[in-house]
Amino acid sequence: MRKKTWIFVAVFMLVAASVIGISTTNSSADSGKHKGKGNNGKVKNVIVMIGDGMGPAYTTAYRYMKDDPSTTKMEKTVFDKHFVGMAKTYPEDPKENVTDSAAAATSMAAAIKTYNGAISVDNDKEPVGTVLEAAKKNGMATGLVATSQINHATPAAFGAHDVSRNNYNDIADDYFDEMINGKHKVDVMLGGGTDYFDREDRNLIKEFKEDGYNYVTTTEEMLENENEQLLGLFAPVGLPKAKDRNESTPTLAEMTTTALDQLSEDKDGFFLMVEGSQIDWAGHANDSVGAMSEMEDFARAFETVIEFAEENGHTQVVLTADHSTGGFSVGRDGNYNFNPEAIKAAKRTPEFMAQEIIDGKSVEDVLDKYVAFDFTDKELSSIKEAADTNDFDKLYSAISNVFNNRAGVGFTTGGHTGVDVPVYAYGPKSEVFSGLIENTDIAGNVFEFLK
Amino acid sequence: MRKKTWIFVAVFMLVAASVIGISTTNSSADSGKHKGKGNNGKVKNVIVMIGDGMGPAYTTAYRYMKDDPSTTKMEKTVFDKHFVGMAKTYPEDPKENVTDSAAAATSMAAAIKTYNGAISVDNDKEPVGTVLEAAKKNGMATGLVATSQINHATPAAFGAHDVSRNNYNDIADDYFDEMINGKHKVDVMLGGGTDYFDREDRNLIKEFKEDGYNYVTTTEEMLENENEQLLGLFAPVGLPKAKDRNESTPTLAEMTTTALDQLSEDKDGFFLMVEGSQIDWAGHANDSVGAMSEMEDFARAFETVIEFAEENGHTQVVLTADHSTGGFSVGRDGNYNFNPEAIKAAKRTPEFMAQEIIDGKSVEDVLDKYVAFDFTDKELSSIKEAADTNDFDKLYSAISNVFNNRAGVGFTTGGHTGVDVPVYAYGPKSEVFSGLIENTDIAGNVFEFLK
Repeated sequence: MRKKTWIFVAVFMLVAASVIGISTTNSSADSGKHKGKGNNGKVKNVIVMIGDGMGPAYTTAYRYMKDDPSTTKMEKTVFDKHFVGMAKTYPEDPKENVTDSAAAATSMAAAIKTYNGAISVDNDKEPVGTVLEAAKKNGMATGLVATSQINHATPAAFGAHDVSRNNYNDIADDYFDEMINGKHKVDVMLGGGTDYFDREDRNLIKEFKEDGYNYVTTTEEMLENENEQLLGLFAPVGLPKAKDRNESTPTLAEMTTTALDQLSEDKDGFFLMVEGSQIDWAGHANDSVGAMSEMEDFARAFETVIEFAEENGHTQVVLTADHSTGGFSVGRDGNYNFNPEAIKAAKRTPEFMAQEIIDGKSVEDVLDKYVAFDFTDKELSSIKEAADTNDFDKLYSAISNVFNNRAGVGFTTGGHTGVDVPVYAYGPKSEVFSGLIENTDIAGNVFEFLK
Repeated sequence: MRKKTWIFVAVFMLVAASVIGISTTNSSADSGKHKGKGNNGKVKNVIVMIGDGMGPAYTTAYRYMKDDPSTTKMEKTVFDKHFVGMAKTYPEDPKENVTDSAAAATSMAAAIKTYNGAISVDNDKEPVGTVLEAAKKNGMATGLVATSQINHATPAAFGAHDVSRNNYNDIADDYFDEMINGKHKVDVMLGGGTDYFDREDRNLIKEFKEDGYNYVTTTEEMLENENEQLLGLFAPVGLPKAKDRNESTPTLAEMTTTALDQLSEDKDGFFLMVEGSQIDWAGHANDSVGAMSEMEDFARAFETVIEFAEENGHTQVVLTADHSTGGFSVGRDGNYNFNPEAIKAAKRTPEFMAQEIIDGKSVEDVLDKYVAFDFTDKELSSIKEAADTNDFDKLYSAISNVFNNRAGVGFTTGGHTGVDVPVYAYGPKSEVFSGLIENTDIAGNVFEFLK
């Protein structure tokens, strides 16, 4: 063939290649949606966000909660805009086929299915490498942010290895002791858990400080951080629910911003896991007020992350749940109505109110102070009856039931359910999370980005 | 440019075009999945399938049901393979914000949000055109297939207009009276409903026959049909549940095949709506055995449809639910296990067994004959107690409860819930259904195909 023809063909191939490129992009945008514009497709930073217990009824209920009643259409939530598919959550456990948070977090951290209770160990109880560890091996900065204790099942599966999620002290120890290339593997840890870090047998806070970590315990101290490595513990165990926090305890969004500010300084990129931990806890307690409080906290953190990713252009975000909790349903007892106003009427969670009553305040004073609606005699007597037992759980449940009944939401269990969970993504590689995926694909894809 | 070069470029463009084609297909496969290969992207036929009440917990439970326990991974169901996203189901009703089947079907048939109970009329009670009617206006063949009476809310919203779903007779009349271009608008109707078609005041069966419809009442008669227009009514109201049918009553797959055989003869293409109607009815009754029976029936019909679409190449299939029913959950009462074997142990539905007992057979004989496991004394006495009341609903519920408890599934309501529902698609335009959509987008997209 003549030389001129070859040149022409080469030019044509470039044009054709660009046409193929455009074609692929369009097709993806139609399906996966919001792939993140204005970047070149390279993933530098990865943020995994987990709404613990946030099954599809929670994300739907949250949409009802955020609806503007003056419009006929129900507005999209911050989650909705980035919906790409669903994930299957079943564990590989010889005795149980509905997952717990440990097995599911291990799937999302280490790309394996395992038994309930496992913290990034397989069914032979052998440790399996996690995406956070892979990032640290790459020289990237790493972070864990949660509203539970920071050594609770979900964050633990990213930063530790243990045969049982219940070995809280050992998990906290792992964060310090399991080094990668001579360095601690988690640069930024923000959540609760002083009970596990400052113990009679060991003071991990002191040890982290000696190794150069800044240690903070209030929002103010946290926001002033300029240190590369940061440990922030804001409660003995889990943080108060968002609705119940005072200013000295940070929101999930504030913790996330702090983590992003610090981690994004690393020229090698970063890996960050952010958990809305207590959606699940409220679900276990069948407490719709607490659940929606934590959904809001998680949504604000997601907004923060999306803003960062939009500006950054090289950040892949994926957000999902580990499982659903409580068998939560939008609608109950034959009624075709979910009334968000009943939930919005609570200024504090039933958990907080129950504690105030147990601590000696009168039922009437507490309900009057923290709830915008008037209780019926029947509702009031059910709560007083529970208060008389002096049993916190019974009282918490009695108060929650009033809100659940008024809101029209139901529960079937104090445990988890197996329903598929929604998946959301933003960033240059969002399409790999779209469709119906296994929870192990979360980690599987992140490992690919880190290669 | 020389002539020879031009010829070369032309050939190259053909090759490049095919490369682009492959690229697009690959990208789609990553996200929306299974867009239908080997077709040119033109939609000739449209099949809408609706699993009434089939929320995400139902599709998940069905996967557990179909799991091969000898493998570690949970196999994909026929639905899973074609998952593309989820749909929002809320109605636009001044009093209720959880949808009923009529409002949701109107959304999927006529692309509007409306009030609960509406059969393709808007909030001003004005009729709104449906996708089935648009197809008929195009000269296409049309069909409705359901396991409920064929004039029940879901099929009704495609082929009739009424201020209330409860006006069953009027809806049946609409199928005959509302002509399009001088022709009846539904060519093939298969389901239940002789009670509404053969009435004291009017015999629609006779009228349809006089207008050239073949009328069939058994599987055998139906399978022998060679007539262009076909009315098949196999029960006074709804069909028996799939698990309870005898050979003379067709499966949903058999009805679907019959409809496809006939409708596909039309050179102008066809529109077909197929409903798995009684997943919802079992959900209302909180009957997991019945629900899984109807999921299986619906899944087999979907397989039939996919096979047809794969062969045809110009058929767009979309499958979703109108809402979820019962607040069904995979897991209950704190247990982390769903046991499909308990459900598989039933050879007939609790509904069928309850009827046999009400009809005079002994509790022991019926349970012994139709259930593979041995009942505990406690279970047996709960059923006997209900049998003693001679109340069908109580007995149905008592039998269902045993299966629900053993299977580990829960319910929160005898009505519907507002959770988003999964969406599945196969065919050349599947990507338009992907991501998080409104239920009105189902009809909106079909209207586009029909333009």
